[in-house]
Amino acid sequence: MQNFNLHTPTDFVFGKEAELRIADMLKKYNAKKVFVHYGGGSVVKSGLLGRVEDKLTGAGIAYVKLGGAQPNPIDTLVYEGIKLCKAENVDFVLAVGGGSAIDSAKAIAVGSLYDGDFWEFFDGKPVERALPVATILTIPAAGSEASNSMVITKTGATPLKRGCNTSHIIPVFSLLNPELNYTLPPFQTACGVADMMAHVMERYFTTVKGVEISDRLCEAILLTAITEAPKAIKDPNNYTARANLTWAGTVAHNNSCGVGRIGDWSSHILEHELSALYDVAHGAGLAVMFPAWMKFVHEADLDLFAQFATRVWNIPPSSDKKALALSGITAMENFFSSIGLPINFAQLGAKKEDIPTLVKTLHINQGDSFGNFVKITMDDAQKIYELAV
Amino acid sequence: MQNFNLHTPTDFVFGKEAELRIADMLKKYNAKKVFVHYGGGSVVKSGLLGRVEDKLTGAGIAYVKLGGAQPNPIDTLVYEGIKLCKAENVDFVLAVGGGSAIDSAKAIAVGSLYDGDFWEFFDGKPVERALPVATILTIPAAGSEASNSMVITKTGATPLKRGCNTSHIIPVFSLLNPELNYTLPPFQTACGVADMMAHVMERYFTTVKGVEISDRLCEAILLTAITEAPKAIKDPNNYTARANLTWAGTVAHNNSCGVGRIGDWSSHILEHELSALYDVAHGAGLAVMFPAWMKFVHEADLDLFAQFATRVWNIPPSSDKKALALSGITAMENFFSSIGLPINFAQLGAKKEDIPTLVKTLHINQGDSFGNFVKITMDDAQKIYELAV
Repeated sequence: MQNFNLHTPTDFVFGKEAELRIADMLKKYNAKKVFVHYGGGSVVKSGLLGRVEDKLTGAGIAYVKLGGAQPNPIDTLVYEGIKLCKAENVDFVLAVGGGSAIDSAKAIAVGSLYDGDFWEFFDGKPVERALPVATILTIPAAGSEASNSMVITKTGATPLKRGCNTSHIIPVFSLLNPELNYTLPPFQTACGVADMMAHVMERYFTTVKGVEISDRLCEAILLTAITEAPKAIKDPNNYTARANLTWAGTVAHNNSCGVGRIGDWSSHILEHELSALYDVAHGAGLAVMFPAWMKFVHEADLDLFAQFATRVWNIPPSSDKKALALSGITAMENFFSSIGLPINFAQLGAKKEDIPTLVKTLHINQGDSFGNFVKITMDDAQKIYELAV
Repeated sequence: MQNFNLHTPTDFVFGKEAELRIADMLKKYNAKKVFVHYGGGSVVKSGLLGRVEDKLTGAGIAYVKLGGAQPNPIDTLVYEGIKLCKAENVDFVLAVGGGSAIDSAKAIAVGSLYDGDFWEFFDGKPVERALPVATILTIPAAGSEASNSMVITKTGATPLKRGCNTSHIIPVFSLLNPELNYTLPPFQTACGVADMMAHVMERYFTTVKGVEISDRLCEAILLTAITEAPKAIKDPNNYTARANLTWAGTVAHNNSCGVGRIGDWSSHILEHELSALYDVAHGAGLAVMFPAWMKFVHEADLDLFAQFATRVWNIPPSSDKKALALSGITAMENFFSSIGLPINFAQLGAKKEDIPTLVKTLHINQGDSFGNFVKITMDDAQKIYELAV
């Protein structure tokens, strides 16, 4: 087990009507002027934004708002938010939505306390401070409601999708009401499940030995996702399934399941190029790239892939570790298919002939190689994309 | 799943030489005058206390110290610590040791900011503030390094052992170096394992339905303890086993595995009387009381006990839920025995003829009944103690 630091300071309020606690929680954390950031129409149409605004107004908490965050949130909206926060002397950022609204809000929180261009932080400059961020989560998936990470796409002829990690953007508090997920369509629910499972699996596949506790914690989250996802897709108003998935999504990415390990993150890196080029849902892209990456790397640790097959996919133990490993990968593909996710380029709407373009922007973003479980070169990346076709 | 709040703000530094970070961490959290609290000789003899004092002196951090915390920490030492903290204008409490030193330090932290008798908080008065507490953990077991709870024994003709929970005593930071556990004798290691498993099982056995995520998280911790405990007992210097057990002990009791559930805590309540009367190790008492409690209550939810048997103890599924439930309980007893723990009064050194005394003080401490999974009356308690004989 590796030495580690773990600090998960987010104050969670979880359950029915959790969003109605917003004014109390903002006061608890001394918010004076709040920037409310949200996405498209559903937060407005569902009445959620109105309920939040009513609570703020009722409690005498000043706020400004900006909508428009979209899947794969973009730099131009971040610039707009930063300008507004600076002009209005905002001291607290509240995201209402899913991972996109939260990531966009995090970037705005960082940029609002910086005189230069916020994109510098996505080019590697260390973040030194940010406005406090809180969230009301409507889509469990990205885990951004408790994570130290954000992903933003720089628009342009060749879009660049990049991540940035810093403890300064870990939400101060997050309000999670699983009922807010009832309106999520089955496909979007499934994409969220793939995303949370990917967050766990990026941590699970590690070269670090002797990490039974985090092996088991990772498996616990995966087993929950596998059990509960079909229920939420079959019956969108199944509170129990929504609640279990919501919390699974949170602990999948607050690093509590990754302690003592070194994560890999290659599948995320490979997927980012897909969603930047095609604007496909991140979770759908992960359902395509994770199996392909596994097919490429599993021989690096057949014991770990065999453990994954037996403990997560309930495949009977066998002395043929290679066969066991492949059975686990197939079981995962079958599961993704069963909940309506694509598992290859054709189903995703990606094109084999774009692979050189994908590898080219990957090279711009990642340099010559990436990944920790197995080091992936650009040649390897090309092969993995081909395995995904 | 129940609505819940979860706030686990403890900043963890985990791994080899973690204790050497003490001065940095105290400065990070603005400690000016530190009260260092510890137990008996091992913290002194091992050189740990000296290393900590050297770091404080080197960093120019003022401190006073008080040793003497003992298993089942007592009120008289708490009064002494409070007097010292008040006299020296201490603003930060650092516990160096196991659960006893930490619990004693927590009570001192609460009492140091209160003009009355700290025992009032153990009589039910809500805690409103406390000095910040941090820990350097030497014995993984009690989970006190990340929990909101403390247990103190009021000395006297009939000792009273009582708990008190408040968010004000959740440690600000905890430094966990598994190497510090190398000197723990096998029996004490085993007692710690029983304690952490009990913390999980008190949460696991609940009447709340639809809590797959926390079912699985609980099982993850139990499975880790079962796998790693024999290794640490066989080879006390097995870093991997010590590290997995240390972290298992922490997450067993910071409530991350108990989300959405209502815990039971009857076995703890029943055990408190044993360790108050006989001064036996808490973990040893739990290894005796938990199986007895299970034998008394399992019919209240055979499905849950069957799940416990199959998922935690790897017993093949069966349509005979009752037999499955009993097999799980037996498997747990066998495990406790295999790591050298007592599983009945005779092995613990408790006496059948003392049961009326145990029930009498239990009644004083708990009123007419306790427990959430099954309500336990005083008659029930007598029967459970008899099952433990």
